[in-house]
Amino acid sequence: MFHSDYSPAKAFYCCLLLALAFFSTGGSQGAKEENERQLRQQASKFFKPLPETMATAEYPTPPERVSLGKQLFFEPRLSADGMISCATCHRPALYGTDALPRSIGVEHRPNPRNAPTVLNAALQNWQHWRGDRANVEDQASKSVLGHGSFGNPNGETVLAKLRALGYAPAFQRAFPETDEPLTLENLGKAIGAYERTLVSPSPFDNYLQGNSGALSLQAKEGLRLFMETGCASCHNGTGIGGHGLRKFGVRENYWQATGSQVIDEGRYSVTQNQADKYVFKVPSLRHVTMTPPYFHDGSVATLPEAIQVMARVQLGKTFNPQQVAAIAAFLESLKGEIPTNFAQAPVLPPKAFNTLP
Amino acid sequence: MFHSDYSPAKAFYCCLLLALAFFSTGGSQGAKEENERQLRQQASKFFKPLPETMATAEYPTPPERVSLGKQLFFEPRLSADGMISCATCHRPALYGTDALPRSIGVEHRPNPRNAPTVLNAALQNWQHWRGDRANVEDQASKSVLGHGSFGNPNGETVLAKLRALGYAPAFQRAFPETDEPLTLENLGKAIGAYERTLVSPSPFDNYLQGNSGALSLQAKEGLRLFMETGCASCHNGTGIGGHGLRKFGVRENYWQATGSQVIDEGRYSVTQNQADKYVFKVPSLRHVTMTPPYFHDGSVATLPEAIQVMARVQLGKTFNPQQVAAIAAFLESLKGEIPTNFAQAPVLPPKAFNTLP
Repeated sequence: MFHSDYSPAKAFYCCLLLALAFFSTGGSQGAKEENERQLRQQASKFFKPLPETMATAEYPTPPERVSLGKQLFFEPRLSADGMISCATCHRPALYGTDALPRSIGVEHRPNPRNAPTVLNAALQNWQHWRGDRANVEDQASKSVLGHGSFGNPNGETVLAKLRALGYAPAFQRAFPETDEPLTLENLGKAIGAYERTLVSPSPFDNYLQGNSGALSLQAKEGLRLFMETGCASCHNGTGIGGHGLRKFGVRENYWQATGSQVIDEGRYSVTQNQADKYVFKVPSLRHVTMTPPYFHDGSVATLPEAIQVMARVQLGKTFNPQQVAAIAAFLESLKGEIPTNFAQAPVLPPKAFNTLP
Repeated sequence: MFHSDYSPAKAFYCCLLLALAFFSTGGSQGAKEENERQLRQQASKFFKPLPETMATAEYPTPPERVSLGKQLFFEPRLSADGMISCATCHRPALYGTDALPRSIGVEHRPNPRNAPTVLNAALQNWQHWRGDRANVEDQASKSVLGHGSFGNPNGETVLAKLRALGYAPAFQRAFPETDEPLTLENLGKAIGAYERTLVSPSPFDNYLQGNSGALSLQAKEGLRLFMETGCASCHNGTGIGGHGLRKFGVRENYWQATGSQVIDEGRYSVTQNQADKYVFKVPSLRHVTMTPPYFHDGSVATLPEAIQVMARVQLGKTFNPQQVAAIAAFLESLKGEIPTNFAQAPVLPPKAFNTLP
């Protein structure tokens, strides 16, 4: 009555089907988990999550130094025309970039290359596209003297402005151990200390720390492609790039793929070494979805196009649209929040030069 | 034993002295309170505390509009060179000013006058030094076309950039009632809506609301002087200025007192009316201690000097150093905090023009 059509044979087949269904699901679940485990294991060989701070023994981040460095980062009055601060090319609202192909500096002077983000920049082994700045401190202290950046004729001009704006006591607090704290080197160290606090972890860091759900299936597919096709052989480590210098245009000339208007010889123009021709810093890809345009000359405006160019000129490959979308989804997982200490403007000293000094 | 030298006479004199001391203190306390009361009463005739919002029926501040306006305020890609945003001349770190005598705009073009703060600016009856902008909305929508500010040749160029940067849906959300929300007028309304949220109350507002302890004794002396000597006859109302247009140089030519390099005829250059010669907007003095240099041409770098110039050319008076210091202390009480919504940068759309359109 209850099972009017009950029969032992039917019951047997029923159980068999259920068992098969159970084991096949369990088996596929198991295989899926194994794939996931392998993917994360492979990823952990290429990449590392962000540290909490980028301070080092040589470049510490005491709060007085960070606070001064933050003011100096946002300070336009140090530039020759009173207009340009670090935050002009590295705007908080644009994830530490300026969205220009190539930056524009003091008195509207064109700069030769694209401004990379300052977020997590202190992780890099090299600063600037040609790797000609040792670290963020070196970059900052040289920028204030750059003709196209801040345009100061010499260090004494910068120090005179710092004194006139009332920064001397803040330098004293930031460098209490030195007799003469107001120096260009310490300006670099203060701005560097501030930049070393600009760490911005992303869903991918969360993934690397063990949260498999932090990435979408598409992003995981992109991650797999990113590692298998060779992208990760340069874009790796904590910065997903930023650690090495490589030739741009391994398989064909980059300017033919990018439409670059000027052929930039890269690090060769610094070293005059033939092996450095067209060699540039491998950029960090953290926040890359937020920082168009791309490449050293900002010649490519969109990420899908940049992915295709890289596949073509570096790997000799062509990705299909699904592969491009998957890699873009992985790159999206490298986007974190803008750190509060970057988004939030400091208060600068209320001083004015009635004529520019 | 207990009072070995007790005598009724001594006790009487002792009580008398105590009583005198009590009443004299009480009397002076009473007089002081009466003075305080009169000062605040007089102040409340000249000045009003800031409202919580500067929204009006005509210019409301719905959150979608404010949010869009904030992005547009910080958006450099609308300018002809991709460098200039509202926040270039109105920097959060400098209390909404640029600390330059006269602003520098797109392609390093010089502007004729000093940039006033945007904080509380929507309170003013006039915008711009010559009063030739009706309100913050009018100012914003005309600035994007100004040759020396954003440098766009026409409105269509601006609208094309807004579309290319992906702002169309945000305009739709900010102006849901209109069929064609992406207009230059609505750009002005959105930026204006954002600016109408930038209210920054100060200790003086607290004082006007009844907290006598919000001002120091010196600031109160400055307030008294400010009202008695005539400063408050122009610098009054909610903005402590910003409500009227007046001749700069009532008692003598301003350029002789300020050392101005150029004689600016002020509103006359707008109206061609002789009565408007050397007439400028009376600036709001809120945050004035944080926004040097001073006057329409930024010709004076320090506040004490600016106070002396005003006394001399407007009132035919000379203040002694104590009076200048007292007035400066009162003006310091007009300084509030930078609103969080101003200090905190927005996130802008991640789009780039690979060549400027």
